[in-house]
Amino acid sequence: MANNIAEQIKLLRRGTVEIYTEAELVEKLAEAAKTGRQLRIKLGLDPTSPDIHLGHTVVLRKMRQFQDLGHKAVLIIGDYTARIGDPTGQSTTRPMLEPAQIEENAKTYFQQAGKILDTSENKLEIRHNSEWLADLRLADIIKLAGNMTVARMLERDTFEIRYKKGEPIGTHEFLYPLMQGYDSVMVKSDVELGGTDQTFNNLVGRDLQRVNGQKPQVVITTPILVGLDGKEKMSKSKGNYIGVTDEPNNMFGKVMSISDEMMENYFTLLTDVPSEKIAELVNSNKTHPKEAKVLLGKTIVSQFYGQQSAQAAAVEFDKVFAQGQLPEEIPEVEISAEPIAASKLLVHCKLVSSGSDAKRMIKQSAASIDNEKLNDPNAVIIPKNGMIVRVGKRNFARLKVNP
Amino acid sequence: MANNIAEQIKLLRRGTVEIYTEAELVEKLAEAAKTGRQLRIKLGLDPTSPDIHLGHTVVLRKMRQFQDLGHKAVLIIGDYTARIGDPTGQSTTRPMLEPAQIEENAKTYFQQAGKILDTSENKLEIRHNSEWLADLRLADIIKLAGNMTVARMLERDTFEIRYKKGEPIGTHEFLYPLMQGYDSVMVKSDVELGGTDQTFNNLVGRDLQRVNGQKPQVVITTPILVGLDGKEKMSKSKGNYIGVTDEPNNMFGKVMSISDEMMENYFTLLTDVPSEKIAELVNSNKTHPKEAKVLLGKTIVSQFYGQQSAQAAAVEFDKVFAQGQLPEEIPEVEISAEPIAASKLLVHCKLVSSGSDAKRMIKQSAASIDNEKLNDPNAVIIPKNGMIVRVGKRNFARLKVNP
Repeated sequence: MANNIAEQIKLLRRGTVEIYTEAELVEKLAEAAKTGRQLRIKLGLDPTSPDIHLGHTVVLRKMRQFQDLGHKAVLIIGDYTARIGDPTGQSTTRPMLEPAQIEENAKTYFQQAGKILDTSENKLEIRHNSEWLADLRLADIIKLAGNMTVARMLERDTFEIRYKKGEPIGTHEFLYPLMQGYDSVMVKSDVELGGTDQTFNNLVGRDLQRVNGQKPQVVITTPILVGLDGKEKMSKSKGNYIGVTDEPNNMFGKVMSISDEMMENYFTLLTDVPSEKIAELVNSNKTHPKEAKVLLGKTIVSQFYGQQSAQAAAVEFDKVFAQGQLPEEIPEVEISAEPIAASKLLVHCKLVSSGSDAKRMIKQSAASIDNEKLNDPNAVIIPKNGMIVRVGKRNFARLKVNP
Repeated sequence: MANNIAEQIKLLRRGTVEIYTEAELVEKLAEAAKTGRQLRIKLGLDPTSPDIHLGHTVVLRKMRQFQDLGHKAVLIIGDYTARIGDPTGQSTTRPMLEPAQIEENAKTYFQQAGKILDTSENKLEIRHNSEWLADLRLADIIKLAGNMTVARMLERDTFEIRYKKGEPIGTHEFLYPLMQGYDSVMVKSDVELGGTDQTFNNLVGRDLQRVNGQKPQVVITTPILVGLDGKEKMSKSKGNYIGVTDEPNNMFGKVMSISDEMMENYFTLLTDVPSEKIAELVNSNKTHPKEAKVLLGKTIVSQFYGQQSAQAAAVEFDKVFAQGQLPEEIPEVEISAEPIAASKLLVHCKLVSSGSDAKRMIKQSAASIDNEKLNDPNAVIIPKNGMIVRVGKRNFARLKVNP
């Protein structure tokens, strides 16, 4: 294979879990290089959760690499399926959405994904699956379903586990992978990208394309990004995420909060820093972890806000945490001059989610007033103008006493 | 329950395997008696095999009982599914048929079923499932499929066995029971009749009706009729059947060929002879089996050809078999006067299917010429006008020698 293709493969392989198959990818890239044909890189997006975080950007960054190599992103909005939702109402991941809501979500999604993707016209194609799914008749669906056996469906990890546990699987759930696979047939995708949780569905696309006389798409899976806690999948509901719309200071601070062990993974999946350089950065004999993490934070923030904002966020972070100074902007909270229990004050300032949360933070010595640690949740505080209430490392409030 | 309803139940229960549930049937019959509303009794027919035999009449006779009680037969022609066939081509029971062929088959079916059913307008409704299935969209099918779990589907005996054996089950096969069940919703059936092989599908109809706010249909299953061999299911392909278009003599002769043990079953499922009377007929202390079997044969033949033909068939049978006389009508076979080997003569007269078949029959002493047993397949016969060639008990040919 040409040297150029070898380089492309090296780039595209980075941070992936699996490529089905790399030989086919090489062939497609070589053919594209020879004929000048753009490859069509499919990615399905979930119109039920428009707000994206860094976990979503892993696959979007992979897409951007393909775009930068000259290929076309084909994004599929699953509007048809979102309109149906889950008819049994058992799946919380498949709520039923109104068409207007779907379009609104798609708009939000593209605003955010546009920070990663190349949105120029010849690099991006956006399709709605209702285009072809709305036309299907029972006869078509029977033919489609005839391409897949029940045993094969039950090999899918999530189905297998549920079936063995005796948890109900609706018969209709077998139709979703077929529909996603049919999407690939309809958009004639060359490559489909997706998280490892989509492996099964995307491989169905290969089968259906083959049956329909198309060259099967290459399926590339990217890992599920671990959240800030270092344990669970990054997700909004778990609160362990960095949103792509997070403010620079917040984004930087969140990156700084990850453990040293997670840095290599984040560098690999969320930045373009070359692998050799990453190896040096995460070797504490060569680079101080703090220094590496600052670079990681600046690199990530600069992707969304530019280098200047990234630099400013780093300075701000250093001022507040390393030098113990107050951050530049502290939210002001209005309050009456009445004496108030410490735990209630924390709740009033919205620095904690509940009274019991407040008590826990105080017990953990994680709350302070004007830099003095609180010990007793019932301590009576008399609010004063300009008083700084703090919980944890990064949450502040400045009191403004109403006369 | 009213005495009348009790009698109806007794009649309807006869010769059934299972009623889901009898209490619901009682309720429906009572309501019908009170309001004068006709119950709608559904029966799906298979448009791929129009020729019907006595095995099919078991369920048709049950339908006729409902009609005679004032209710309406709702026959469903599965034209939509027959047009699709089995897209995988693996199922020989689901060939793909042209619309014209389906209509032709349905016509044949009704010509034959009309010998059992009451075809008056207010007692019979014929529907094609394409009426409603052709309109279904993917969204409808997802909703439909959402009513049934995969585990429930795999409980169906045929699926369970195949799944455990590792035999492929196409995902589309899960859709057929749902479609049949949907038919029940669309025709608002009160009762569905079917062989025991349809139990699962028909119970799905109950579920779907319930989900759609209808009272679930009562499902009545009838047994699969054993063929003339007393072992296997009566079927055309096995050759162990009595067709409803069989000539009276042939029909009568076939009934006479069944074993004594099978008489009770045939009396119960194929005649209206009261149970008490059947008990006497099959008790060899009270009735000679030959006498009972003649009555069975006459009763069955008279259903299709009237009592006179039935009586004539009995006389003819007696003449040929009991008294060793020749039947009244013997097919004439033209032949040259050339000498011919015995086995070849049998083939020429079409009394056997092949030369080896001829040899076997001769070896078994089952072939004769003018009442003289043949022993040697190679014996040279000189054909003569009026010579009677016979194979087995009921197959004759009369030679007509061409000058």
